[in-house]
Amino acid sequence: MNPPELREAIGPALAFVDLLGIAVFAFSGALLAAEKRQTLVTFIFFAVVTGVGGGTVRDLLIGAPVFWIHRNSVIFICLAAALIAWAAPSGLWKGRALVWADAVGLAAYSAYGAAKGLAFGAAPLPAIGMGVLTACLGGIIRDVLAGEPSILMRAELYVTAAALSAALTVALIAAGLPMALAAGIAAAAGFALRGGAIRYGWRLPSYGR
Amino acid sequence: MNPPELREAIGPALAFVDLLGIAVFAFSGALLAAEKRQTLVTFIFFAVVTGVGGGTVRDLLIGAPVFWIHRNSVIFICLAAALIAWAAPSGLWKGRALVWADAVGLAAYSAYGAAKGLAFGAAPLPAIGMGVLTACLGGIIRDVLAGEPSILMRAELYVTAAALSAALTVALIAAGLPMALAAGIAAAAGFALRGGAIRYGWRLPSYGR
Amino acid sequence: MNPPELREAIGPALAFVDLLGIAVFAFSGALLAAEKRQTLVTFIFFAVVTGVGGGTVRDLLIGAPVFWIHRNSVIFICLAAALIAWAAPSGLWKGRALVWADAVGLAAYSAYGAAKGLAFGAAPLPAIGMGVLTACLGGIIRDVLAGEPSILMRAELYVTAAALSAALTVALIAAGLPMALAAGIAAAAGFALRGGAIRYGWRLPSYGR
Repeated sequence: MNPPELREAIGPALAFVDLLGIAVFAFSGALLAAEKRQTLVTFIFFAVVTGVGGGTVRDLLIGAPVFWIHRNSVIFICLAAALIAWAAPSGLWKGRALVWADAVGLAAYSAYGAAKGLAFGAAPLPAIGMGVLTACLGGIIRDVLAGEPSILMRAELYVTAAALSAALTVALIAAGLPMALAAGIAAAAGFALRGGAIRYGWRLPSYGR
Repeated sequence: MNPPELREAIGPALAFVDLLGIAVFAFSGALLAAEKRQTLVTFIFFAVVTGVGGGTVRDLLIGAPVFWIHRNSVIFICLAAALIAWAAPSGLWKGRALVWADAVGLAAYSAYGAAKGLAFGAAPLPAIGMGVLTACLGGIIRDVLAGEPSILMRAELYVTAAALSAALTVALIAAGLPMALAAGIAAAAGFALRGGAIRYGWRLPSYGR
Repeated sequence: MNPPELREAIGPALAFVDLLGIAVFAFSGALLAAEKRQTLVTFIFFAVVTGVGGGTVRDLLIGAPVFWIHRNSVIFICLAAALIAWAAPSGLWKGRALVWADAVGLAAYSAYGAAKGLAFGAAPLPAIGMGVLTACLGGIIRDVLAGEPSILMRAELYVTAAALSAALTVALIAAGLPMALAAGIAAAAGFALRGGAIRYGWRLPSYGR
């Protein structure tokens, strides 16, 4: 498919992924605010930045209109995530539920970002970069703002899983698969890798060690 | 009013707010450089980043031409703020004068940012976000660059005052008020809230406390 | 020359500077990842962010298409820099070679950034800012992400050398010199200043000391 066809295909096939990714990431931002004992306003700020940060930078880079400016729904989801995190009993999010939800968001969002990159004319390597950015940048900005060491500086397989999902999306679309199928297979592979990292503690080797 | 009419109305009515906000924020950036015993070049960098940071991100997000690229005046104001902060006796800025000037800038700039967001077609919730960004982001970037805890992480009513001013601007324009009147009322309310926070130490409750 | 002529002139004359700057900065990003004992994925992320960060923000600000989105070569150079830094014996980069390569990149890249700013219609002062950004921002983002004190907070003549190179480029083009000559003279001056700072420890005075 060429860019305009891809742009057509992206709407119905992957719109739900967008909202899922936003909700999960917004929620993870609000939970960091909770950990830091912040105010509701900071909950909202972190939810918005984490929820839309990666996709926003992607849209600026590929020259697309920023996806949340012309509708209320995206910011509304972020507000709702912040309010739920604020109001719910804090014990509720202990355990691994959020880590797994984040893994789903990571895998799906990186496939989506790579596909959207191609749809707006990015070359293959930059399109893979767009997928990684979409999935990872919101969390990185969140961590920098909170003064936390970012996911970037940990040896966990996180950015790597996003890169696998994004690269497979680009490769499978280049191989002629329909976008939704390509993105689905790629997201499943990225999720499997991230899931293995969560379950079995898979890590990348660090330099010089 | 619809977006093109808003865009028309924004010019004469609110242009001075732009310059006031830039000058105040640029100055606060230069003063942080002074506190950190930096060089003149760092004074200038901080003045520029703090003065134009929020409005720059707003313009990128709403798809407007970045407001300071095609004229010299904005960068000139930032340079002047840096030089004044560098040359003036440092005792001059002790006390509360700058905090109050910052409160004026915060209230006016968030009203202006929300109005400009609407004028470029942003939906109401994102337009409120544009107001908050315009008023707060420059200072946040300044604090992150300097390695300071950002205003975001303090319980003071700061972002909240910007949000009030931006939300009122959007609500009053939706209610049919002329833009300058809407922005004026909204900025006054935001300034009153921020002023109360400065004067009486009003704070938001923190999570779990 | 007017902006369209400048845009014409920039292609053949200065394209190699682009690639040199990207390679040097990408490599310096990867070396910081090595110092921090990071994984290969982090090497790549740092190489890309440092290599393209400054030019990316410049292109967004001046409204140019982001320079690395529509071709594979730029990201490919960053990947190669990351892999070389990962694979080569770490003793190889001890000493001053990289500092001098960075000085070449700094001087050339700030001249290039200022010229590209003018070519897209920036006024003179903002165009100088574009040159400084192009040369310095990638490294600043790299340092913030790694939790290092950024070059901004050191008294070394670094940003100053970029500012000299960018300002001379703008002044000489305004004086009627052909772009390649203007940029060449300006870059040589910026390199001389930065070189003096490396060789003789030239510093700027800090505030209040």
